[in-house]
Amino acid sequence: MLALYCDDNRQVTLKELPPPVPGPGEVLVRVTMAGICGTDLQILRGYHGFRGVLGHEFAGVVAGPEDSPWLGKRVVGEINVSCGVCDLCRAGLPRHCRVRQVIGIKDRDGAFAHYLTLPEANLHEVPPGVADEAAVFTEPLAAALAVKEAALLPLSSPLLVVGDGRLGLLISWVLAVSGSEVHLAGRHEAHLALAKPYGVITYLEKDLPGGDYEVVVEASGAASGLDLALARVRPRGTVVVKSTYTGRYPLDSAALVVPEVRLVGSRCGPFAPALRVLAQGRIDPRPLIAGRFPLSQGVEALAFAQQPGVLKVLLDCRE
Amino acid sequence: MLALYCDDNRQVTLKELPPPVPGPGEVLVRVTMAGICGTDLQILRGYHGFRGVLGHEFAGVVAGPEDSPWLGKRVVGEINVSCGVCDLCRAGLPRHCRVRQVIGIKDRDGAFAHYLTLPEANLHEVPPGVADEAAVFTEPLAAALAVKEAALLPLSSPLLVVGDGRLGLLISWVLAVSGSEVHLAGRHEAHLALAKPYGVITYLEKDLPGGDYEVVVEASGAASGLDLALARVRPRGTVVVKSTYTGRYPLDSAALVVPEVRLVGSRCGPFAPALRVLAQGRIDPRPLIAGRFPLSQGVEALAFAQQPGVLKVLLDCRE
Repeated sequence: MLALYCDDNRQVTLKELPPPVPGPGEVLVRVTMAGICGTDLQILRGYHGFRGVLGHEFAGVVAGPEDSPWLGKRVVGEINVSCGVCDLCRAGLPRHCRVRQVIGIKDRDGAFAHYLTLPEANLHEVPPGVADEAAVFTEPLAAALAVKEAALLPLSSPLLVVGDGRLGLLISWVLAVSGSEVHLAGRHEAHLALAKPYGVITYLEKDLPGGDYEVVVEASGAASGLDLALARVRPRGTVVVKSTYTGRYPLDSAALVVPEVRLVGSRCGPFAPALRVLAQGRIDPRPLIAGRFPLSQGVEALAFAQQPGVLKVLLDCRE
Repeated sequence: MLALYCDDNRQVTLKELPPPVPGPGEVLVRVTMAGICGTDLQILRGYHGFRGVLGHEFAGVVAGPEDSPWLGKRVVGEINVSCGVCDLCRAGLPRHCRVRQVIGIKDRDGAFAHYLTLPEANLHEVPPGVADEAAVFTEPLAAALAVKEAALLPLSSPLLVVGDGRLGLLISWVLAVSGSEVHLAGRHEAHLALAKPYGVITYLEKDLPGGDYEVVVEASGAASGLDLALARVRPRGTVVVKSTYTGRYPLDSAALVVPEVRLVGSRCGPFAPALRVLAQGRIDPRPLIAGRFPLSQGVEALAFAQQPGVLKVLLDCRE
């Protein structure tokens, strides 16, 4: 099979590899569509020191083993492969399993390939009305929804999302559809325009009016975004931090302690609610698609995705 | 009256000043005992750019006006002077009032003097059994108790306090007296010994055994303390940040986002519960007293308090 492989020197090449063999309790998934995420691009800059097949956002069809009840089903898959027995798994936190693998990120091959393997426990069937091009957004949409578990969200005062990239837009959408008044601050008029159909009130960062917010979600992936978030969160308020950066953020501890602000890290989210909002048509992520490449042009796709201001780039893995 | 005055050049001198005149709704307090806090020492290094009479930890007796129902009462006083009408005051957050003054810290003279003024609303009567030397700890004890409002505290697993200074010790005590298993990591055997009578399990930082904690309280006042806290908090756990530092902490955003950790800033606390634990004899803060100076030797007292490893230094303002 073809696969986009990241080697020891963080060089990505298209490789011909033998298809992976599912272990006990696992299935073989034929990937149909995969999405390039900011984390993939960070891995190319050294994040996590990952080596192997890249990619964790995908939709596909179960191709084996022959006796699997999942055979032939259209699926998406949770990206964390957990042990099920460590204290954190038993505490109901399998996404934080102490010995977890993460497909395409940590110790396990990913989805930028014709095939990948995953435990059956990780699978979710894609509802009939959801196209592969939408289902491939399940993972980032779940991560966006996770904001709702990270903080109590105000309903009677607006909340602020910082960052108009893929994740910032998805977050502004999922918060807006549940009734919140969402303000989105970004740097790209064209991206901000994608939030308006959801009733999101958008601002170029430099034009954001004064005032503070009980909850600010930082999804810009830049230190300047956390600066803005901390400047605009009200005393006793919460900044939900969704982005990682390369490098360190110079935190002023007084900005945390004096106003008694909370910084809450938030990473992955649960797939089931993401599939529900897709199936019910509450959110259609396809306007985020900026480009589409066959897997055989994966190297070119990564280069395109790395250009500033490019939203979601998909890899069509059927070809 | 005598007062310890911090001038534009952060020079502290003993000054003869006219006693302050209480405004409407305010009282004149004759200070009996005051305590030197880390914040006072930070102000001398430029924190907050404060100019005026230093000091916010005190006990005293109401000396006027003649018609005040508080006249002659032994009191301590909340340090934040709030407007009562801004949105944060009305939201029940008067300690975060948008135009607040803070005695000895921000825009209002403090307690290292023979007299200070305070609104009646800030006063709490000191219960009869509590000596001035103990009552002067009400403010830091309230700040220690505030940890209980900053995070849900585990009862079935231990929690970790980092820092064996004044605040770290008070925090370890207040958490221990309510049944928590408290581990305290510090750098001074003599300080750690003060926590043992409360059932706190103490470690030199370098000897802290492996494992992680659902809640870690950072009270060391040093960047290395926040390093240790972030290294030892478990996924989805909480670090309560009680200390401010001069300088910036180089925050690795991945250390927050990947394990979905919470950083919660916590500053002041409510006085009433602090006075209750003092009155009920649950906590006796007096073993923290490392030195006692008359107000007239206030400059020397500040110099003594600045030496490494010195716990609480009191100023006797009756002389």
